[in-house]
Amino acid sequence: MSHANGSPVLIVGSMALDSVRTPAGEVQEALGGAADYSSVAASFFSPIQLVGVVGDDFPTEHLDYLKSRNIDLGGVQIVKDGKTFRWAGYYDFDLNVAHTLDTQLNVFADFKPALPEQFKDAQYVFLANIDPELQLDVLNQVRKPKLTVCDTMNFWIDGKKDALIEVLKRVDVAVMNDAEVRQLTGKMSVITGARALQELGPSTVIIKKGEHGALLFHGDQHFAAPSYPIEEIADPTGAGDSFAGGFIGYVASQDSITEATFRKAVIYGSVMASYNVEDFSLNRLRTLTYDDIAQRYRAFQKIAHFEALDIAKA
Amino acid sequence: MSHANGSPVLIVGSMALDSVRTPAGEVQEALGGAADYSSVAASFFSPIQLVGVVGDDFPTEHLDYLKSRNIDLGGVQIVKDGKTFRWAGYYDFDLNVAHTLDTQLNVFADFKPALPEQFKDAQYVFLANIDPELQLDVLNQVRKPKLTVCDTMNFWIDGKKDALIEVLKRVDVAVMNDAEVRQLTGKMSVITGARALQELGPSTVIIKKGEHGALLFHGDQHFAAPSYPIEEIADPTGAGDSFAGGFIGYVASQDSITEATFRKAVIYGSVMASYNVEDFSLNRLRTLTYDDIAQRYRAFQKIAHFEALDIAKA
Repeated sequence: MSHANGSPVLIVGSMALDSVRTPAGEVQEALGGAADYSSVAASFFSPIQLVGVVGDDFPTEHLDYLKSRNIDLGGVQIVKDGKTFRWAGYYDFDLNVAHTLDTQLNVFADFKPALPEQFKDAQYVFLANIDPELQLDVLNQVRKPKLTVCDTMNFWIDGKKDALIEVLKRVDVAVMNDAEVRQLTGKMSVITGARALQELGPSTVIIKKGEHGALLFHGDQHFAAPSYPIEEIADPTGAGDSFAGGFIGYVASQDSITEATFRKAVIYGSVMASYNVEDFSLNRLRTLTYDDIAQRYRAFQKIAHFEALDIAKA
Repeated sequence: MSHANGSPVLIVGSMALDSVRTPAGEVQEALGGAADYSSVAASFFSPIQLVGVVGDDFPTEHLDYLKSRNIDLGGVQIVKDGKTFRWAGYYDFDLNVAHTLDTQLNVFADFKPALPEQFKDAQYVFLANIDPELQLDVLNQVRKPKLTVCDTMNFWIDGKKDALIEVLKRVDVAVMNDAEVRQLTGKMSVITGARALQELGPSTVIIKKGEHGALLFHGDQHFAAPSYPIEEIADPTGAGDSFAGGFIGYVASQDSITEATFRKAVIYGSVMASYNVEDFSLNRLRTLTYDDIAQRYRAFQKIAHFEALDIAKA
């Protein structure tokens, strides 16, 4: 693993203040948003170029923290007299289901991503969950990326399916959860759904399945990553975003888009997600070390290991 | 893989005639039942001693087929003027849910497993899904088994929980699906549920998760097996039984109860289940070869493979 000295990753998405309650506790207006989670997770592997928007009520300590993670905030608009996007929600004992209490788009409602000149040459691009029309805006601004990855959510599959399908035609990798794949493709089987998604455009599809791990479909190849068995999840918010961040951050650090790299990257993504859910907001990532990451990567190796077919005995 | 020359496996459970309809087609009064599925799957690895009951309406061709698989029918009672257990059901597009149309217990209602003398020394015992009181009857008849494995279903968790818990106190391995673990332990997380199940008795717990693969909890160790990506499932009936049969059949063939053997056995179980669902009844297993099994085992290796942490680059 390289120590964040890889190729820069351009990340665009939401920056938010989240108020979250789970059976393990709660936080008020904590650092959140898909772009924040994915940028911080990716920053363990590669330098980040962040594109997003906040109001001038966004705490300076959060901006300082992001900068301290080698995240270039040159693409972050700070709207004067504006209010930052806020989300409030809770999880019951079924931590797979987020219940929204309140969504205040605020400055995010009029967000138009504008890439600084030096961001337009980004080789690695992650379009975090955001209006697919804005994802297209970003794709139109980057010159010649080596790898583009997109995420989305049920809200856009419902409301902006055409734009989303246009995005899918243009990206290399789609990262979605199993429910989103079913919703978008109408296929009950996640396997058939992933293949249908590949036919829409992306040569690689990654399906996040929470406690059931993640699947990678790369051309006609298939990889299944296990999940890490966490008995006490504090807060699942940002799990998918930190997964995607770990994935693209690792790929960029290797500057390699082979299937072998993608497989390892799925494990690094799973490592980042598994740590992220151990605490609220980005708190666990704040104290995370490279030793922690290596240790859990090895734990994934052990979880997935079984001996090869013993030819001698066959 | 040894060619069915391992230690004999004693299997007790239901022998049935199934009428099943799925989106892929239907069969009427086809060979089925947990003991038949698991015995045939296990018979690819070890000789089988089968304990069950049928009526004299049970087709001779089915008995002949079971015998041809190196299954000792010395423990199968054929009730004169009796009718064999029949199950009729269907699956919609969600193949995870079986809808029962009709259950006729017939001779199965009064079944009392009686082990022939030579079966009582069995080293490997699989208690397929059956009334837990009958599972206890069998445990009381075997002298000194090396490994006992049990399966169960929601019906017994509801109706005979005390007897089932008594079974769990006495077996080495419990094999259940994720819904059954939740129902029995009351834990939402399958991880916490598996640990709770281990505290009830079995040092090893295996959780079948269908398209999400299988989990092995062995002492404090954890193994996650992927599933094989089948796009067209013909009939999911017997998937869990052929999984369990492949598992114990392989363990017995190695005469080894180490964790490494259990991990391989989970893969062999997954191989057998993945083939079984490709056709109705036991039809796919009828034509299955050792080459098929080896080929799919290698496919599982490929699906689960990712490179080790690269220390040099860390």
